[in-house]
Amino acid sequence: MAVSKVSDCAQRMLDRLEQLGRDPKAILSRLKSLEIETPSWGYADTGTRFGKFHQAAAARSIQEKLDDAGQVHKLTGICPSVAVHVLWDFPHGADAKVTEHARKAGVRIGAMNPNVFQSQCYKYGSFGNRDPEVRRKAVKHCLDSVKLGKDLGSEYLSLWFADGTNYPGQDDIRARKKRFADALKEVHKAMPSNMIMLVEYKPFEPAFYHTDIADWGMACLLARAAGPQARVLVDTGHHYLAQNIEQIVAWLIDENMLGGFHFNDRRYADDDLTMGSIDPYQVFRIFHEIIAAEEERGQTLKIAYMVDQSHNLKPKIEAMIQTVTTAHELFAKALLVDRKKLRSAQAKDDLVEAEETLRAGFFTDTRPLIGYVREQMGIEADALAAHRASGYEARVAKERTEKYGVPTEASFA
Amino acid sequence: MAVSKVSDCAQRMLDRLEQLGRDPKAILSRLKSLEIETPSWGYADTGTRFGKFHQAAAARSIQEKLDDAGQVHKLTGICPSVAVHVLWDFPHGADAKVTEHARKAGVRIGAMNPNVFQSQCYKYGSFGNRDPEVRRKAVKHCLDSVKLGKDLGSEYLSLWFADGTNYPGQDDIRARKKRFADALKEVHKAMPSNMIMLVEYKPFEPAFYHTDIADWGMACLLARAAGPQARVLVDTGHHYLAQNIEQIVAWLIDENMLGGFHFNDRRYADDDLTMGSIDPYQVFRIFHEIIAAEEERGQTLKIAYMVDQSHNLKPKIEAMIQTVTTAHELFAKALLVDRKKLRSAQAKDDLVEAEETLRAGFFTDTRPLIGYVREQMGIEADALAAHRASGYEARVAKERTEKYGVPTEASFA
Amino acid sequence: MAVSKVSDCAQRMLDRLEQLGRDPKAILSRLKSLEIETPSWGYADTGTRFGKFHQAAAARSIQEKLDDAGQVHKLTGICPSVAVHVLWDFPHGADAKVTEHARKAGVRIGAMNPNVFQSQCYKYGSFGNRDPEVRRKAVKHCLDSVKLGKDLGSEYLSLWFADGTNYPGQDDIRARKKRFADALKEVHKAMPSNMIMLVEYKPFEPAFYHTDIADWGMACLLARAAGPQARVLVDTGHHYLAQNIEQIVAWLIDENMLGGFHFNDRRYADDDLTMGSIDPYQVFRIFHEIIAAEEERGQTLKIAYMVDQSHNLKPKIEAMIQTVTTAHELFAKALLVDRKKLRSAQAKDDLVEAEETLRAGFFTDTRPLIGYVREQMGIEADALAAHRASGYEARVAKERTEKYGVPTEASFA
Amino acid sequence: MAVSKVSDCAQRMLDRLEQLGRDPKAILSRLKSLEIETPSWGYADTGTRFGKFHQAAAARSIQEKLDDAGQVHKLTGICPSVAVHVLWDFPHGADAKVTEHARKAGVRIGAMNPNVFQSQCYKYGSFGNRDPEVRRKAVKHCLDSVKLGKDLGSEYLSLWFADGTNYPGQDDIRARKKRFADALKEVHKAMPSNMIMLVEYKPFEPAFYHTDIADWGMACLLARAAGPQARVLVDTGHHYLAQNIEQIVAWLIDENMLGGFHFNDRRYADDDLTMGSIDPYQVFRIFHEIIAAEEERGQTLKIAYMVDQSHNLKPKIEAMIQTVTTAHELFAKALLVDRKKLRSAQAKDDLVEAEETLRAGFFTDTRPLIGYVREQMGIEADALAAHRASGYEARVAKERTEKYGVPTEASFA
Repeated sequence: MAVSKVSDCAQRMLDRLEQLGRDPKAILSRLKSLEIETPSWGYADTGTRFGKFHQAAAARSIQEKLDDAGQVHKLTGICPSVAVHVLWDFPHGADAKVTEHARKAGVRIGAMNPNVFQSQCYKYGSFGNRDPEVRRKAVKHCLDSVKLGKDLGSEYLSLWFADGTNYPGQDDIRARKKRFADALKEVHKAMPSNMIMLVEYKPFEPAFYHTDIADWGMACLLARAAGPQARVLVDTGHHYLAQNIEQIVAWLIDENMLGGFHFNDRRYADDDLTMGSIDPYQVFRIFHEIIAAEEERGQTLKIAYMVDQSHNLKPKIEAMIQTVTTAHELFAKALLVDRKKLRSAQAKDDLVEAEETLRAGFFTDTRPLIGYVREQMGIEADALAAHRASGYEARVAKERTEKYGVPTEASFA
Repeated sequence: MAVSKVSDCAQRMLDRLEQLGRDPKAILSRLKSLEIETPSWGYADTGTRFGKFHQAAAARSIQEKLDDAGQVHKLTGICPSVAVHVLWDFPHGADAKVTEHARKAGVRIGAMNPNVFQSQCYKYGSFGNRDPEVRRKAVKHCLDSVKLGKDLGSEYLSLWFADGTNYPGQDDIRARKKRFADALKEVHKAMPSNMIMLVEYKPFEPAFYHTDIADWGMACLLARAAGPQARVLVDTGHHYLAQNIEQIVAWLIDENMLGGFHFNDRRYADDDLTMGSIDPYQVFRIFHEIIAAEEERGQTLKIAYMVDQSHNLKPKIEAMIQTVTTAHELFAKALLVDRKKLRSAQAKDDLVEAEETLRAGFFTDTRPLIGYVREQMGIEADALAAHRASGYEARVAKERTEKYGVPTEASFA
Repeated sequence: MAVSKVSDCAQRMLDRLEQLGRDPKAILSRLKSLEIETPSWGYADTGTRFGKFHQAAAARSIQEKLDDAGQVHKLTGICPSVAVHVLWDFPHGADAKVTEHARKAGVRIGAMNPNVFQSQCYKYGSFGNRDPEVRRKAVKHCLDSVKLGKDLGSEYLSLWFADGTNYPGQDDIRARKKRFADALKEVHKAMPSNMIMLVEYKPFEPAFYHTDIADWGMACLLARAAGPQARVLVDTGHHYLAQNIEQIVAWLIDENMLGGFHFNDRRYADDDLTMGSIDPYQVFRIFHEIIAAEEERGQTLKIAYMVDQSHNLKPKIEAMIQTVTTAHELFAKALLVDRKKLRSAQAKDDLVEAEETLRAGFFTDTRPLIGYVREQMGIEADALAAHRASGYEARVAKERTEKYGVPTEASFA
Repeated sequence: MAVSKVSDCAQRMLDRLEQLGRDPKAILSRLKSLEIETPSWGYADTGTRFGKFHQAAAARSIQEKLDDAGQVHKLTGICPSVAVHVLWDFPHGADAKVTEHARKAGVRIGAMNPNVFQSQCYKYGSFGNRDPEVRRKAVKHCLDSVKLGKDLGSEYLSLWFADGTNYPGQDDIRARKKRFADALKEVHKAMPSNMIMLVEYKPFEPAFYHTDIADWGMACLLARAAGPQARVLVDTGHHYLAQNIEQIVAWLIDENMLGGFHFNDRRYADDDLTMGSIDPYQVFRIFHEIIAAEEERGQTLKIAYMVDQSHNLKPKIEAMIQTVTTAHELFAKALLVDRKKLRSAQAKDDLVEAEETLRAGFFTDTRPLIGYVREQMGIEADALAAHRASGYEARVAKERTEKYGVPTEASFA
C-alpha cells in the first residue's frame, strides 16, 4: 500500500470520526502513547516438548536479543522496553555494558523475570516446595532479581511459578498456599517503593494435577497477601477454555488489582501463538474494557502490556512485529468504539444496538490508521514490509551462523 | 446382600483398621453425623430446554415434596433437612401447617432459596439489572426470604443468580459488579446473626456471554463485600472443564470462606446428573480435602452439604437415594484414607507412595461399611432396595395421578 | 451511513481489487447468489431451561413466521427460503394455503425438520430407542416428513436427534448405533431422488452421558450407511471446545459429505447465540475453506446454509437480520482473500505472509460492500436500520398482542 | 497385606461370584491372558517444554530399557512385550544382539514406532509436508520400520504424526489430507500380511492451529484409505475435554476399526500421567465396552493394549508398575460387571438398576483378586512392594550413574 493511500484512507476515517463528535487528536495521541514490551526470550529459539526447530537468525546472547528488540521498536515505534530473564540474560548480575548496549539498540530494560523452575532443585516446586532450603534458594533468586531491577531501573518484578503437583495426594494444597504467601511477602518487603510485583496465574502445565496459582482468584488473593505493591498478571493464554477473559480484566480493574498482561493466543492450551492469531475479537473486547475504564476515570491505567509468545515456526522478529501490529490495530479498533452511543443503547436495554455499536469498532479497518500513526511517528506504515526490505534477518542470520555454527541434527532434542 | 454379610464384611474392615492404628469408632461416628440436605425441587418434574418428561410420582405441592424428602431421610438416615424454594414452596410466606407437615414427615426446613430469575421482569437481570426498580424487587424478595428463614428457623440463605449478559456490549460489567455488591450488602444487613449467606457461582447458562458471578474468585470477593456472614457455595457442576475443584475447596477452607455445596455431576456443562455418576474419584478428593482440614483443626467444619440435581429421566426419589448413598460411600472412602501415612509419604516426596495411600481409600469398597452404619442407625443396609420394596413410589404415583390427572402430550413443552 | 458513502467506499474497494488482478464482477455475483435459509422456529419465543421471556412481536402461527421470514428476506435479499418444523408448522400435513401464504410473503418452504424428541414416548430415544414401536413411530414421522417435503417441493430432510443416554450403563451404545443405521436406511429409501438427507451431530444436550450422533465422524459414518443422498449437517455450535471446525468442514468437502450448516455462535456449550457474535474469525475461516474448494473446482458447492439460533433476549427479526448480515459480511471477507497470493506464500512455507494474506481478507471492512450489493439488488444498504424504520415490529407486536393477549407471569415457566 | 489375606479375600469374592451364577474360572483366565505392552521410551528421562528432571535410574540404551521392561513383566506377569522407537532404539536397523538381550530380559519386541517428527526437516510436517523430498524421507523411514518389524517379528506398525499447522492459512488442509492418504497407502502396501498399521489421532500439540489427524473420525477415514490392515489407535489422553471416549471405542469396535490403545491419563491436555490417576471410572467404562463386545462375540478382540505415558516426576519403573496394576484392577472391575443383569435392567429401561449394576463392578475392590491372580502366576501379590523390596532401582541407579556420570545443571534444558 503506498504511503499516500494510507494517509488518504486514514484521513477519511479521522474526518468521519470528527463529524461523529469524536476527538481524532485524542485517538491519535492514545495510539502513539501505547507501549508494548517485548521479551528478550522471544528472540531466541524455543520449541515444544517434542523438539526445537532452529533458526539461523535466532538470538543467543542478551546483546543479540536487545538488537532484535531494537529492530522491532524501530519499526513499530511502541516497543521501547525489553523484559529480561534474570537467569539467562544476567547470569552475573547487573552489567553496565548491557545497559549501554540496550541504549545503543534504542531500547531500555523492562520487567525482571526470575527463573525458579529450571534448576533440578525445583523438581517439587520453588515457593511451594516443602524443603525450606529450596524455598530459601528460590526466594534468594527473587531478592537478587529485585536488586537487579533496582540497579537497572526496572519497575516490574514479574513472577511466574511452575509450582504444583502431578498427582492427587502428592502434596498438601493448603500447606503450599501458606508457603507461597510467606515467600511472596518476604520478596515484597524487599521491593523499592516504585516497584510493582506481578503475580501470574496458569491453570496447568508443567504441573498437571494442580498448579499452585491456577487462576485469577488465587493470584488476586496471593497478591493481596503479598503486599500493597502486588498486582495480578493476566497471560491471555492461561485460561480455561470458554473463560471470559475480558470479564476477569474488568473485575481486576475494579478491584485495582490489574498489573499487566502477557500477550499471546491459543486454540486449546497454552499454545503461545502470536497475539490475535486465533481469536482477535476477544483481544478487542479486552482492550475495550480497559479503554472504557480509562475514559470513565479520565486517566490512563498503569498496565504493563508485555508480549510472551513462543514462535517456534515463525521467524522471531516477524512474529514479534505481527503481534505488536495486531495489538496496535486491535487497540485502535477498541478506541474507535463510540462508547457514548454504547452507553445510551445499554441504558435502553437495546442489545442489538449496543452490540452493533461495539462491533462497529471491531469491523472498522484500522490498518490504515496505524499506518498513519506510524508515518506521523516518522516510521514506515507497514512494519513487516519494512523489516523484510531492511535485510536485517539475512544479515544477523549470517553473522550468528558464523559465530555459532550451523545447528546439527545432533544438537537437536 | 444379606444383612449378616454386610456386618461380616464391615466388621472385617473395622478390625483391620484397628490393627492399622486407626480409630473405627471415630470413623463410624463421623459417618453417622454427616448430614446432606435434599432440595424440595428435586422431587418435582424437571426437564431440559427441549422438554420435560413427566413422572406420575413427581411431587407438585410442598407437602408432597416434604413427604418424599421424608422417605429419603427415613431410608438413608442422613437427610434430616430440606432446602426450600421460597417462590414455589412458600408463595404466601411462612406457614405453620407446612412446618408441622415437615415435622410429621420426619424432616425440617433447611436453606432458603429465593428466586430472582423466573419473573419476566428479570429479563436483563436481578441484582445486576440497571433498572433500580427491578433491583428493588429482587432485593425485597431476598429480604422476604431472610424473614421467612427467621420464621422457619433456617440457618442458610442460599443465593444463586442467573444474571449476566448474552452478547458483548450488552451491559457494563463493572457497573453490574457494583450493583451486586450493594444489593448483597443490603440483604446481609437484614440477616440475623446466626444466618449464613451462601453466594453461588456458575460459569455460564442461562447467561451465555458473561455471568455476573462466574467463578469462585468472583463469589469470594462479593461474599467478602457483602459482610462477615457470607460464604461461597460450591456447586460441583459449575466449573470450567478440567478445573480442579478440590483445590478451590481447599483454598476456600483456608480462606474461611467455604459455606456449602450443591452436589451433582456432569460430563460437559451443568448437566445436573446424580452425584458421582460421571467422576466419583473427584468427589472423593473433595471430601479428602475437607476431612484433612477437619482432622488438622480437630473439629468438624461447618459446611452445608446440599443436593441440587435435575433427574429428568430417573425416578426422583431413587435418584436422590442414589446421590445420598454415593456421597455417603465416597465420604467413607475419604475418611478411610490413612492421612498419617500420607503425610509421611509427602514428607519424603514419595509421589507413588503418597498417591497409593490416597487411592487405597478410594479403592476400598465402602458399601458394606455404609450398610453397617445404617443398620446401627436402625435402618436397612440397602436404601434403594428398601425403597423399592416399600411400594412408596407406586402408592404416591397412584395418589398423585388421581389428584392431578395423567399429563397429556398437550401439557408438554 | 448515507447511500452515497456506501457506494463510494465500495467502489474504491472494487477498484483496488481490479488493480490487484481480481475480478470484482465475480465477487459481486457470488455475493448476490449466496442464500441463507432462516428457520420458522427462529421467529417464535424460545428460552432456556430456566424460563422463557416473552416478546409481544413473537410469531406463533406458521403464517406469522412466514411473514417475519418475508420481512427478513425483503431487507437482506438473500433469505428466500424458510426451514420448517414439521410438527409445529404442519401438524395436519401439506397445506396449500400455507404455500400460498409463503408465496405472498415472498419466500418459499425450505428444509423439512421432523421432530422426534418432544413427545413423551421419546423419553428413552427415537431411532435409538430399544422399543420397536417407538422407533416405528419416529420413522413414520420422518417418512411423513419426506412425503410433506415432496408435496411442498423441499429438497432437504434435516435430521436432528436428541437421542442418547444420561448415565453410564443406561443402554447399549452399539445396539443403538445399529438401530440408527437401520432407521436411517429406511427413511433414505423413501426419499425422492432430488432430496438430500442431512444428518446433524451434537456432542451433548439433552443427553448428558452419551449422545448417539455425537460428532462429525459418527454423522459421516451413519450418513454413508443411510445411502448416497445423505450428507452431514454442521451446526457451528455443536462442537467440543477448541475443536477446529473449519478443518472438519474441509474434510467433509473432500469426502463429498458436506450437506449444510446450522449457523449460530457460542462461548461454552450450545448457546445458540447469533452467528459470529462470539468468534467471527472462525466463521470467516469456515467460509474460506468453502470458497477455496469452490475456486479449485470451478463451481459452487451445493451446501444448505441455514440459521438455527435461539435469541431469547434479542428481538427475533433483528437477531435474524444481524446473523444474515454478519454471515454476508464474513462471506465477503472470505471472498476477498487473495488465494493466489496465499498459495504462493504457502508454496514457500512463508507462514507469516500466508497468514497475513488470509487476515487481509478478514480485516477488510466489508460492510460498505454488502451495502453496495444490497443497493444493486434494489434494497437498502443497512437492513437493520431499514427494519427499524419500517415499523414492522411495532405493528406485528400490536396485532399479535390483540390476537393472543399479553403473556402473564402465570403463563410463564 | 499378607499373602493369605489376599487369597482369603479373593476366594470369598470368587465364591460369591459362583453363587451369583458367574464363572470364576473364566474370569481368572481372562485376567491372566490380558497383555499390556510397555514402551521402551517410558524407561528413559522425559520432561516438559520447561525442562527435564533427571533420574539416576533412568535408562539410556535399548538394553537398559529392555532390562527395566523385564523387571516390570517379572513383577506384573502381563507385560511380555516392549514397544520400540525405531529411531532411538534401532538407529542401525535390526540387531540380533538386541533381540537376544530382550529374550534374556524375559520380554519380546512389540510395536514398531517410527519417528517422523524429530528431524529438522519435519518442521512443516512429514506425510503432510508439501515438499515431496521430505515426504519421501518420512515414507522411507516408515518402510524401513516395516522391514525392521518383519525382521524382529513385530505385528504392529504404530504411527503417530506431529503434522499440522500453527496458524490459519499456513497450509492447505485438504491438500495435506491427500498427501497423508497417499503416503499411508504406500506404507500399507509394504506391510506383510500379518502386520497391522495403527493410525493414532491427537487434537493438538505440537501443532496448535490444526493437526492433520485430529480425531478418531479422521484416523478412521485415513486408515480405511490406507488399506485393510489399518486400524485406529486410541490414546486415552488425546481427546477433547468432555469427550466420551468409551463411545468412540464402542463405535470403532462396531466398525471393526479398533486397533489398540495408548494408556495414560490427563486432567487438561495431553498430560501423559499414569493411567487412571485422574479418572479411573472412565477407564473402567472403556474396558466394559470391550468386554461386553467380547462376550457377545464369544471371542477375545485383537487389541494392542500399550502404555504411553511421560512420568517426569515419578520413578520410571514404579510408574509403569502402577499403570499396569491399575489397568489390571480396572479390567477386573469391568470383568466383574454382571452384564446379564445389566441387559435385563436395560430391557426394562430401568436406568437406576442398570447404572447400579455397572457401578457394582467398579466399586468392587479388585486389588485382592489381582493379587490372587499374580500368586497363581507364581509372582508376588503386590508388585510395587516387591519392586521396592528387590533393590532393583538402587542397583541400576548406581550402575547407570557410574556409566554415564551424574547429570549436571549444565546438561539440563
